[in-house]
Amino acid sequence: MMNPLTPDHVLAALRWRYATKQFDPSRKIPADVWDALEQSLVLTPSSFGLQPWKFLIVRDPSIRAKLQTESWNQPQVTEASHFMVLTARTDLDKHDIETWITRMAEAQGKSLDDLAPLKGMIAGFAETMSSEARHAWNTRQVYIALGQLMTSAALLGIDTCPMEGISAAAYDRILGLENSGYATAVGCALGYRSADDKYASTPKARFLGEQVIQYLGEA
Amino acid sequence: MMNPLTPDHVLAALRWRYATKQFDPSRKIPADVWDALEQSLVLTPSSFGLQPWKFLIVRDPSIRAKLQTESWNQPQVTEASHFMVLTARTDLDKHDIETWITRMAEAQGKSLDDLAPLKGMIAGFAETMSSEARHAWNTRQVYIALGQLMTSAALLGIDTCPMEGISAAAYDRILGLENSGYATAVGCALGYRSADDKYASTPKARFLGEQVIQYLGEA
Repeated sequence: MMNPLTPDHVLAALRWRYATKQFDPSRKIPADVWDALEQSLVLTPSSFGLQPWKFLIVRDPSIRAKLQTESWNQPQVTEASHFMVLTARTDLDKHDIETWITRMAEAQGKSLDDLAPLKGMIAGFAETMSSEARHAWNTRQVYIALGQLMTSAALLGIDTCPMEGISAAAYDRILGLENSGYATAVGCALGYRSADDKYASTPKARFLGEQVIQYLGEA
Repeated sequence: MMNPLTPDHVLAALRWRYATKQFDPSRKIPADVWDALEQSLVLTPSSFGLQPWKFLIVRDPSIRAKLQTESWNQPQVTEASHFMVLTARTDLDKHDIETWITRMAEAQGKSLDDLAPLKGMIAGFAETMSSEARHAWNTRQVYIALGQLMTSAALLGIDTCPMEGISAAAYDRILGLENSGYATAVGCALGYRSADDKYASTPKARFLGEQVIQYLGEA
């Protein structure tokens, strides 16, 4: 572990970030920084470690143009250095659990027998849900990844714009996700703010701490 | 903006973190660091900025003991320095939107008239969903907060354990949330790992980058 950051350092980064509306199309995220952003996704914690997701990095300009028309025509989709679509597994079946347990055994040097109890527990947990509920569960995990990605980006000096105002069904069609077992959850544009983005200097609006944080009991 | 962190710095923190099973009950998070963690929640981005959440910090040991019994008896609930329950608004109605627009006007020095178009757009968007879908939407936003919280914590040298293996209905009952308009989404224990936690040295298991990241088009 490197030295922890100071509280001020973390807060400065979180206050610096905002949902960037206008990116500078001429500035590209350097490869080493982009690699770290990808790794922030790979390292994201998830329920039982299942990682029920795929992250699509859309490089093809013609695909990005099509996605923009399905995103209330917001220019971030095509102007940002990078555009990502975070997708969730639409279900969670025995094959998914098997794939994960196999990977876990490999990464941790364990046998499949060692992990059989965990496998049974995950399967038992997943069975209590409908297919729709499992998709919703997976989608929530994807939002942890979105949070980890945006926070990591801010600390790396990278601007982001999370994008929920998109037609997920159209995205799925354009990205070839129909019947793939994965579905669009949310988009995220990443890059550098344009000097012209007036939203960069708009005061950040949040509820006050006492409006959203409550204490049960004394400190 | 302070200097951005290096990719190595961010990745070291993300690799250092793990779902801590055993906390050192004698170590408490200092007040300034805790304040920064609360601010990481306050500053979390959300859809339309609606912040459809409340974060409950459970200090009362007797309440934490009750919650532990509804959490597969996992000791993190009582042993960690802090235990938090992240809750989501169970719906999103005109009053919520009004409250948010009023706060936004105040924070940004705008008039309610300035923000009337935004207010109408949010209301129109929310109306397309059922009450259940709005609750699910809000819950996904809470998971962005969970992601931002855990990532910020790692950079501050604070251990976390996200807790989904809880009985949300029992939590709601114990926390007095029934009919409050908020419902338990997920828990999170925060503090310092115990030297005895064998999970701290278990190799981190994740899918390989090529298993979860796909590129559409050439770089």
